[in-house]
Amino acid sequence: MIVVMAPRATPEEIAAVREKLEKFGFEMHLSQGVERTILGAVGGKRPPETAALEVMAGVEKVVRILQPFKLVSKEFKSEPTVIKVRNLEIGNSRVVVGAGPCVVENRDQLLEVARRVQAAGANLLRGGAFKPRTSPYSFQGLGEEGLKLLAEAREETGLGIVTEVMEPGQVELVAEYTDILQLGARNMQNFNLLKALGAVRKPVLLKRGLSGTIQEWLMAAEYILSGGNYEVILCERGIRTFETATRNTLDLSAVPVAKQLSHLPVMVDPSHGTGDWKLVAPMSKAAVAAGADGILIEVHPRPEEALSDGPQSLTPGRFDNLMDELRSVAAAVGRQI
Amino acid sequence: MIVVMAPRATPEEIAAVREKLEKFGFEMHLSQGVERTILGAVGGKRPPETAALEVMAGVEKVVRILQPFKLVSKEFKSEPTVIKVRNLEIGNSRVVVGAGPCVVENRDQLLEVARRVQAAGANLLRGGAFKPRTSPYSFQGLGEEGLKLLAEAREETGLGIVTEVMEPGQVELVAEYTDILQLGARNMQNFNLLKALGAVRKPVLLKRGLSGTIQEWLMAAEYILSGGNYEVILCERGIRTFETATRNTLDLSAVPVAKQLSHLPVMVDPSHGTGDWKLVAPMSKAAVAAGADGILIEVHPRPEEALSDGPQSLTPGRFDNLMDELRSVAAAVGRQI
Amino acid sequence: MIVVMAPRATPEEIAAVREKLEKFGFEMHLSQGVERTILGAVGGKRPPETAALEVMAGVEKVVRILQPFKLVSKEFKSEPTVIKVRNLEIGNSRVVVGAGPCVVENRDQLLEVARRVQAAGANLLRGGAFKPRTSPYSFQGLGEEGLKLLAEAREETGLGIVTEVMEPGQVELVAEYTDILQLGARNMQNFNLLKALGAVRKPVLLKRGLSGTIQEWLMAAEYILSGGNYEVILCERGIRTFETATRNTLDLSAVPVAKQLSHLPVMVDPSHGTGDWKLVAPMSKAAVAAGADGILIEVHPRPEEALSDGPQSLTPGRFDNLMDELRSVAAAVGRQI
Amino acid sequence: MIVVMAPRATPEEIAAVREKLEKFGFEMHLSQGVERTILGAVGGKRPPETAALEVMAGVEKVVRILQPFKLVSKEFKSEPTVIKVRNLEIGNSRVVVGAGPCVVENRDQLLEVARRVQAAGANLLRGGAFKPRTSPYSFQGLGEEGLKLLAEAREETGLGIVTEVMEPGQVELVAEYTDILQLGARNMQNFNLLKALGAVRKPVLLKRGLSGTIQEWLMAAEYILSGGNYEVILCERGIRTFETATRNTLDLSAVPVAKQLSHLPVMVDPSHGTGDWKLVAPMSKAAVAAGADGILIEVHPRPEEALSDGPQSLTPGRFDNLMDELRSVAAAVGRQI
Repeated sequence: MIVVMAPRATPEEIAAVREKLEKFGFEMHLSQGVERTILGAVGGKRPPETAALEVMAGVEKVVRILQPFKLVSKEFKSEPTVIKVRNLEIGNSRVVVGAGPCVVENRDQLLEVARRVQAAGANLLRGGAFKPRTSPYSFQGLGEEGLKLLAEAREETGLGIVTEVMEPGQVELVAEYTDILQLGARNMQNFNLLKALGAVRKPVLLKRGLSGTIQEWLMAAEYILSGGNYEVILCERGIRTFETATRNTLDLSAVPVAKQLSHLPVMVDPSHGTGDWKLVAPMSKAAVAAGADGILIEVHPRPEEALSDGPQSLTPGRFDNLMDELRSVAAAVGRQI
Repeated sequence: MIVVMAPRATPEEIAAVREKLEKFGFEMHLSQGVERTILGAVGGKRPPETAALEVMAGVEKVVRILQPFKLVSKEFKSEPTVIKVRNLEIGNSRVVVGAGPCVVENRDQLLEVARRVQAAGANLLRGGAFKPRTSPYSFQGLGEEGLKLLAEAREETGLGIVTEVMEPGQVELVAEYTDILQLGARNMQNFNLLKALGAVRKPVLLKRGLSGTIQEWLMAAEYILSGGNYEVILCERGIRTFETATRNTLDLSAVPVAKQLSHLPVMVDPSHGTGDWKLVAPMSKAAVAAGADGILIEVHPRPEEALSDGPQSLTPGRFDNLMDELRSVAAAVGRQI
Repeated sequence: MIVVMAPRATPEEIAAVREKLEKFGFEMHLSQGVERTILGAVGGKRPPETAALEVMAGVEKVVRILQPFKLVSKEFKSEPTVIKVRNLEIGNSRVVVGAGPCVVENRDQLLEVARRVQAAGANLLRGGAFKPRTSPYSFQGLGEEGLKLLAEAREETGLGIVTEVMEPGQVELVAEYTDILQLGARNMQNFNLLKALGAVRKPVLLKRGLSGTIQEWLMAAEYILSGGNYEVILCERGIRTFETATRNTLDLSAVPVAKQLSHLPVMVDPSHGTGDWKLVAPMSKAAVAAGADGILIEVHPRPEEALSDGPQSLTPGRFDNLMDELRSVAAAVGRQI
Repeated sequence: MIVVMAPRATPEEIAAVREKLEKFGFEMHLSQGVERTILGAVGGKRPPETAALEVMAGVEKVVRILQPFKLVSKEFKSEPTVIKVRNLEIGNSRVVVGAGPCVVENRDQLLEVARRVQAAGANLLRGGAFKPRTSPYSFQGLGEEGLKLLAEAREETGLGIVTEVMEPGQVELVAEYTDILQLGARNMQNFNLLKALGAVRKPVLLKRGLSGTIQEWLMAAEYILSGGNYEVILCERGIRTFETATRNTLDLSAVPVAKQLSHLPVMVDPSHGTGDWKLVAPMSKAAVAAGADGILIEVHPRPEEALSDGPQSLTPGRFDNLMDELRSVAAAVGRQI
C-alpha cells in the first residue's frame, strides 16, 4: 500500500499516516521528494481500506498494491480449479456446453429440448424455474413445479441441471433439485444471496453483472469462497455499454483476464450477451477460441412461442449445426467438446 | 405497437403477424410501401412482449408505442404524489434533506450526528444497519442493534429514519423500526425484494441502479406499486460510466426526466453520486436547482475514522454551511428548505 | 512514479528498472517487502511514459504520482484564468451566457435570434458556419457566408461570436471573423487541430469529447497551451453512457472537478448535453448552481423549421424566461448574470 | 417513417405533420386508436430528419424505419466487397494479417520487424509515421521520413503498407506512399477528413471510434463512399466502457453485426482493443472465429524500448507462434491464413 502526500503536507500529517499504518503491522518506507512525500507500507497482514487513508489530512492519493481478493486469486492457488458435476468436469480440457430454454414453460417443451440438446452433445441442461423479469406483468416462471420438471428431464437424459436462485430464502429449495445453482447478473452484488450460496455445498454459476467490473465479479466470488463453498464457475454474459445494436456487449476479453487473475473456471453465455440468435453462433465460436471452459446457449423448439427471450434462442436444428462447428474450433485450440 | 416487416416478407408472414396481434385485441392497420410493409396495432389492452413478435418470420423491427410502465406514469395519475413521513411531506414545495452517517457505528457516533444535523435543519436521519459491502472482509453493519440505535435517535431528535433493507426475509424486521425502507442501488433489480416491498405499507426509497436506465428504474417502482404499495420515492445516486475522476457519474438530468414521466417524488444522493466530499456541496446545490424534491447527504463527526465511505462524508460543520447555501438556492427556484 | 515489482521478480529485473529510472534523473527509494518489492522514483524532471516501464520484465504495476498535464494545472498557476472577449470577461464572478442557433441558416434567422438573445441579456452569440453532421446527406452549413453573417450580427448587436472550426486548414479563415474559436466534441482528440489552435492568438472553447475523460480533456487543453495559446475555455456538453432517455449524459460534476484541477474557466452546454429543450432550463440552473462560469444555449425562432437540432432549441420567449430564472440562481450562489 | 402523436394531439397538429411528410413525397397511412394516433409514412425518397418532426406540436415519438446509411448497406449491394491491395484481396475467404510496430522509430527497427512478420506469413505492414498522442510531450512520429522508411520496407519485403493520416491537408502526401490509408479511432467523426478520404482512390481502413456506435461507424463509411471512394475496410479496435482491467473493451460482436448490415470487409485490432500483449493471442483467435476478414497486430523487436504502446506489442517470436495458432482456427471456420 502506497500513500502519496499532497505537496504541502505537514510533518505532523505525514507522521499521522505513518502511525496509522504501523498499527496495522506495516513496515514503513518513506521517500522525501522535491514536490511530494511518498509512504510505502510493506508486509502488513490485512491493510486498512484505502478510503480510511484517503480521508486523512494531507493525503493526496492511496494506491493499493495487492488485489482485494485472496481465495479466488492465482497467488493463493495456482492450479486451475476443476469442478465435478455428476460425471462431468468443468475446468479441464473438455469445453462444457449447457443448453436449454430461457424459462421452463411446461413438461413437453422442456423434455423436447432436453432430448434434442443431449443428442447434439450438450453436457448440461439450463432452464429457469424462478425467473427475474424487468416487468411485474411478465411471466415469472413455474417455481417449484419448474424445478420438478428439470429433475425429471435429468432423470431421462442424464444431463446435469443449472437453474437460477433469486433470494436467500430459496437457496435450500433450489439446491434440493439442481446440480448447479445459478446467480443471475442482476444479483451479482446481492451480498446476502452470495453469503447464502457460500453456505451450501453445491457448485455456483456466478454471472457477471451488467455493470460489474472484473474485480467486483471476483470479489463476489470471494464472498462465496470465504463462506466455505469453493466451487464457483464464473460466467461472462455481456456488459452494459452505449452500443444498442446488441442487447449487451459481450466482453470476451474478460475470459483470458479472469483466467490470469483466478483459478476458477470461466464460462460464456452468448445468448444473453448478444440478445440475437443470429449472433450466437459466431460469438460461441469466438468464446471457445478465447479460451472459455464452457458456454451456455438458449435453445427453444419454437422460439416464436417462447414466453421469454425468444429472439435470442436457437432452434434445435441450428444448435445441431453449431455443435459441429464448435467441435472444430475446440480442436483448433487443443480442446474437445 | 408497430411491426415493420423485412423487405422480402411474404404475404403469409405478414398474415401471421396480423393474426397474432388481432388475438391480443388490437385493431390492425396495414401500410404497404414500395420497400416494406408496416403493421400498426392500435387499441389492444396489454400488448404481447416485443420479443415475441421480433422472433416471427419476416419481422424486421418492432416498436412499442406506449411506455411499459403504467401505475407510476403521469398518464395514470397526473398530480404529483406527496408522501407523508411523520410530520413531513415529501414531494411538495419544501425540499427535504436527509443526513447522517453511511453506517451506524455506535450509539455516540449516531446520536452526535443526529443532534447536529437536526440542529442544522435536516428532516430525516439516514444510516445503515445492514450494509452492502463489495468485500466480505469489510464491516457489514450492526444489524438489529443498529436499527435500535436509529429508533433511539428518532426518539431524541424527532427526525424520521431512512435505512436499507437487503433481502425479503429482512423486510418485516426493518419495517418495524424505520420510517422509510431504502432499497440500495445494487438491488434495484432484485425482483423478489421489490415484491416484498410491494407488500408492506411503508414508504420505500428506491435508489437507481449503477447501470439502471430511467425506464428500468421506473419499472422497478412499478413492481412495488403493482404490489399495492403506492409510496415510492425515487433516488438518483450516480450511474457507472467510463469516467474515473468521480466514483460514479451523478446524472442530474434524471431528475427532470423522471418527473416528466412519473408522478413520484425524486431525491438525489450526491455523496454516493460523487464519492468525494469536496463535490457534495456543488452537486447538492445543482440537484436542488434541477428540481429535486430532496437530497440525502452523508455526515460523519470524524470522517477519517469512519468505518465506511469516509471520503464522501461531510463534517457537521461543513453540513451547517451547506444548509445555508441550499436555503438560498431553494428560494431561487421557488421552494423552501 | 512508483513501480511495483511482481512477486517473483529477480534482483536483475529490479536493477534494470532502477537503472532506467535513474537515467531519467530520479532519486530511487527501494522497499523490500515479504511479497513484493516497490521502487519509488522521486524528483525526476519529465518521467518516462508508464507504458515504457510496464513492459519491462518483472514489473507488475506502474503508478504515476503526478498528473500528466502541467500548464493547465492549478499547481502551475493557482489563480483562475480570466479571458477577455471584447468587453466581456469569462472566468470572473459574472456568469456568461452564449446563445444562438445550432447552425446559421440565413440572414433573417440569425439577426432575429441575435437581437432577441441580446435583449434578453446574453453576452455571446453562438452559431455554426462549418457544421459537423453524422450524415453526409445533412445540411453542412453555409461556410464563409455564415461567418460573414455572424460578423454582421456582431456589428449590429455588439455580441461576441463563438463558432466552430473543423480542420487545421480552416483555422486562419475562421479566426479572421470570430471572437472565440470552438473545437467540437468529436474533435477533442484531433491533435493536429489542437496544435493549429495552439498557434493562434484567440480564445478557444474546448468541448469535452463524448468519451473523453476529464484527464484527457485537460490534456487536450494542454496541447493548446503548450503551443503558446493560454486562452482556453473548457466546455462540458454531455458524455456518452448507456442511458438513452437523454441524447447524452450531462456530467455536471465535471465542473467542480475541472475547477479543482485547473485554473481554466468552465462552461456548460445543456442543449447538446440533454438533446431536449424541456430539459434545458432545469439543467442550465443546475449548471450555474454547480459553479459553471458560463452556459451555451441553443435558441431558434422556429425550432420546428430548424435545419439542425430543433428538438433541443428554445424559442426566444422561453429563453427570456430562463434568463430571469438564471439571474435568481446566480445570485443565490454569489454571482451575477 | 412512423410518427406517434401524443394522447391529446389536436386534429390540426395531426394535419400539419401529415402535410409536412406529404411534401417529402410520402404516401400517408393514418391509424386512429383509443389513446393515440399513428401516422405511417411510406415510399418517400429521402425522409426529413427525425428531429425536424419530433419538434412539431403534438408529436410524441418519431421512428425511422430505414437505416440512415445507403451505399454501405447490404440492401444496396448484396455481394461482399473485396478490396485489392497489390496482390492481396481483403474480404474473400483468406483472412488477412497486418503486423508491425505502433510507430516507425527508425530504419533498423522497421526493417527488422518487416522481415520477421513477412517471414511469419503476414500480408500487410502496419506502422505510424504521423502519430496521434494524448500528450503533446510524447513522441509524435517521424512524419514524411517515416513514410519513406515504410516504402523502403515494402520494396524489400513486398508487403503492402497501412499507415495513418491525421488531417485533410496530409491526405495527398500519405496517399503517395501508402497502399491503405488508416483513419484512426479518435478521428472517426472528423468529417472533413472523411470527405478528403472520399476524394482519393486508395483503400481506407476506418477504425471504429472509442464511443462510436456501429450505426455511426457505418455512417462514417457512408461519408467516404458518398464521395466516390468505395474501398473502405472497417476495423473494430475496442470501445470505451466502465471496465478498466483492459485498455478498451474489444467488441467482437461488432464483426457479425457489421457484416449483417454492410457489404464491406471487417478487420479487428486486438492490440489496441486490449492494450495488453498477453491478451492479443486469445483475442486474435476469437476475432477469426467470429468471422473477421483480417486482423492487425502490433509487433516490436524490443517492446520494452518501444516509443509507444510497448505493453501491447508482441515480440517477433510470439508473433510466429500466434500465426501457427491462427492458421488452425481459420481452418476450423473454413478459411485460410
